[in-house]
Amino acid sequence: MEIQKELEKGMQKPFKRIISANIGDAHAMGQLPITFFRQVLSCVLNPAQIKSADFPHDVKARACELLAGCGGAAGSYTPGTGMECVRRHVADFIARRDGYSADWQDICLTQGASAGIKHCLQMFCTTLGAKDSGVMIPVPQYPLYPAALAEYGLGQVDYYLNEDKNWSVERTELERAYVEGSKTHDVRALVVINPGNPTGQVLSEENMKGIVEFAQKYGLFVLADEVNQENVYAEGSKFTSFKKIIMDMGPPYNETELASFMSISKGYMGECGLRGGWMELVNMDPDVQANLYKAISAMRCPNTIGQCIIDMVARPPHPSEPSYDQWMQEKSGVLNSLEERSKMVVDTFNKMVGFTCNGVQGAMFAFPRIDLPLKAVVAARADKQSPDVFYAFKLLEETGICIVPGSRFGQLPGTHHFRTSILPQTELLREMLDYMELFHGKFTLQFS
Amino acid sequence: MEIQKELEKGMQKPFKRIISANIGDAHAMGQLPITFFRQVLSCVLNPAQIKSADFPHDVKARACELLAGCGGAAGSYTPGTGMECVRRHVADFIARRDGYSADWQDICLTQGASAGIKHCLQMFCTTLGAKDSGVMIPVPQYPLYPAALAEYGLGQVDYYLNEDKNWSVERTELERAYVEGSKTHDVRALVVINPGNPTGQVLSEENMKGIVEFAQKYGLFVLADEVNQENVYAEGSKFTSFKKIIMDMGPPYNETELASFMSISKGYMGECGLRGGWMELVNMDPDVQANLYKAISAMRCPNTIGQCIIDMVARPPHPSEPSYDQWMQEKSGVLNSLEERSKMVVDTFNKMVGFTCNGVQGAMFAFPRIDLPLKAVVAARADKQSPDVFYAFKLLEETGICIVPGSRFGQLPGTHHFRTSILPQTELLREMLDYMELFHGKFTLQFS
Repeated sequence: MEIQKELEKGMQKPFKRIISANIGDAHAMGQLPITFFRQVLSCVLNPAQIKSADFPHDVKARACELLAGCGGAAGSYTPGTGMECVRRHVADFIARRDGYSADWQDICLTQGASAGIKHCLQMFCTTLGAKDSGVMIPVPQYPLYPAALAEYGLGQVDYYLNEDKNWSVERTELERAYVEGSKTHDVRALVVINPGNPTGQVLSEENMKGIVEFAQKYGLFVLADEVNQENVYAEGSKFTSFKKIIMDMGPPYNETELASFMSISKGYMGECGLRGGWMELVNMDPDVQANLYKAISAMRCPNTIGQCIIDMVARPPHPSEPSYDQWMQEKSGVLNSLEERSKMVVDTFNKMVGFTCNGVQGAMFAFPRIDLPLKAVVAARADKQSPDVFYAFKLLEETGICIVPGSRFGQLPGTHHFRTSILPQTELLREMLDYMELFHGKFTLQFS
Repeated sequence: MEIQKELEKGMQKPFKRIISANIGDAHAMGQLPITFFRQVLSCVLNPAQIKSADFPHDVKARACELLAGCGGAAGSYTPGTGMECVRRHVADFIARRDGYSADWQDICLTQGASAGIKHCLQMFCTTLGAKDSGVMIPVPQYPLYPAALAEYGLGQVDYYLNEDKNWSVERTELERAYVEGSKTHDVRALVVINPGNPTGQVLSEENMKGIVEFAQKYGLFVLADEVNQENVYAEGSKFTSFKKIIMDMGPPYNETELASFMSISKGYMGECGLRGGWMELVNMDPDVQANLYKAISAMRCPNTIGQCIIDMVARPPHPSEPSYDQWMQEKSGVLNSLEERSKMVVDTFNKMVGFTCNGVQGAMFAFPRIDLPLKAVVAARADKQSPDVFYAFKLLEETGICIVPGSRFGQLPGTHHFRTSILPQTELLREMLDYMELFHGKFTLQFS
């Protein structure tokens, strides 16, 4: 942000603009919003427009339904768990997705997925025995998890993803981490991020079954971060929800306690700023669930606009409706372009000397491993920086490209990575990758 | 909600509809949104409309400014503390309000006031000495406070408002509560709600100065819940911010650590469902503030639509602009009607036998005291209910009027109250008060 302000003031830099590849913010990187969504929202907020002739009739009808769902006024509080009609549509969406029914009362709308994840983690604050509660989280992981665990005084029990097997979750590693973590903590829950952030893998069903067996063996509550479920690109990769896996597996696995999280910030929507999400609670003790809902309701309700988008994600225009074609075209446009960009990034990285990058099967990030020259590592230490942070700052200062060092997500000691989003639009992404190649060549030369 | 569903199913009840006087939800009770706000929002969400000729030019200009403030896209994340342009406008608003400058970097936009309040309370979780931290809160109080204190494991130190002096905050009572609370807790902060919720008082400047002296004496951080600052009705009453008071008082009082909270859910806006608020941090240690902002940013950002409304609250249309007249008319309409309704409620209650009700000087609730007949108290105990809960349920079941028993907010032991909003529109409010009078007469007779 400081560099951005300097650029605006006309200060000379070796680049003309900052490329913010550090966050998963699609609209900030030029992705356009879905027309149907925004037309409906504009009617919901300004119902006088519903009478005007400018919008297709399905837009107006949906706006009326959503207004009815919040008692006629988008400015009213909804229940803390969200509007009933939206929760019902989410349950229908999940039932269609998984082939197993979902109870709308187990769906809770949230202010983005983060809010739901934090509420669920907070349930484990209660100490049951002599040890404090611990939660297993992957390494590398989305930084919300360690931050929330620290905030709640919960133990962080790391399990490492296997980079050599495309960031898979190995049963032996889970067992190791559990045994290790249990020495100091009462391990009670397991976080799985699928599709992976920052790692971009899409777990195979076999891998997921192993995770469920493990969770069942130790009675762990599974938090399934499935916010990127619509973002799957690689041939042969397919998103399967943990809900479907446990149901497919039958008893006793279908009794696994599970919370699954979804967000309007990802997918083809990318509506980060409007803050919306949902969670489905599966097999949760009814008393616990009632108390969780009570705690959530103390904060009033998620914003109604985010709830309205959730409704449209769960129940997009029907093929018979006038907005369908444009919606489908826009959705495919976004997802196809992301697929193309995911390949472009990975192909470029794997051509670069010193880079190794697993395929981006899903989500919206690549997490390449970089072998940094020994001199660079020494120079970083002299600067009191970890080598990946050193690399990231040099990249930023010389090219204006902003990425996140791997140490922010955790990585196997001695390895170095960074996370870049695949969100800059194709042309800008090409430019960014060209700059990166140039920079990396110079950097390698400088420190060889 | 169960009764509402039964009514919808056609079940016979002694009333036709539920009157939800239990929550401060203006739009749900028929208050219309401010046209300017909603027109701007509709353009922000659907920028194609900005080109259309349907809106006044100031609406379009504001939408463009707000879009520029979020990098051109309302679907992007903003900084965790909110858009810089909005924070600057809030600082200007505060400077105009108080006559003392405000630094925009001390303004943090939040997802409703509750989010800001919780973030600030959480700062006191760290135990400094042998005792756990404690926070002084008024009785009666808005239920968020005890809920948040319990959630964070902070000690609740009650101080009683003086009902006989129009719910004033007495210095002697503050001292008593501090001494009492200090036996078990390290008392570090003081919450003041002004205008009062549920109690409706507007504190005098003299009273506020006494509070500041007290806070200064014991080094307490003051959390000033000033969400109802635009809602002041009584003749002779005037809202003054704690910021202005400490600045007026000069050294050492102008060094009091203070956080003030504001919300778009109150005032003339009543935009509860859209979730927006701000807090101003005054005299906070810069390192603490930096860490607070960091913790807040872990949850990404408050929703952009709420932020846009904050901008318009802080910077309403200028008298020279085309939307000014309608904005002013709508604002005055809401506030004048609330003033009328505040008097109507209080006058009615004070005519009822067994009711005593302080004037509603501000905010949007009345909190009458009811002398319940001994037989009613006995009947309540037999039902294992507190007498005010017993009364509230009877009222709901016989009239469909939903209020909140005083015990939900805390009250002097042995006294009974309830909170009703003054938000039903005038005609409905008249109807509600008539039903209440009838009910109370019958109730008194039945239990005499």
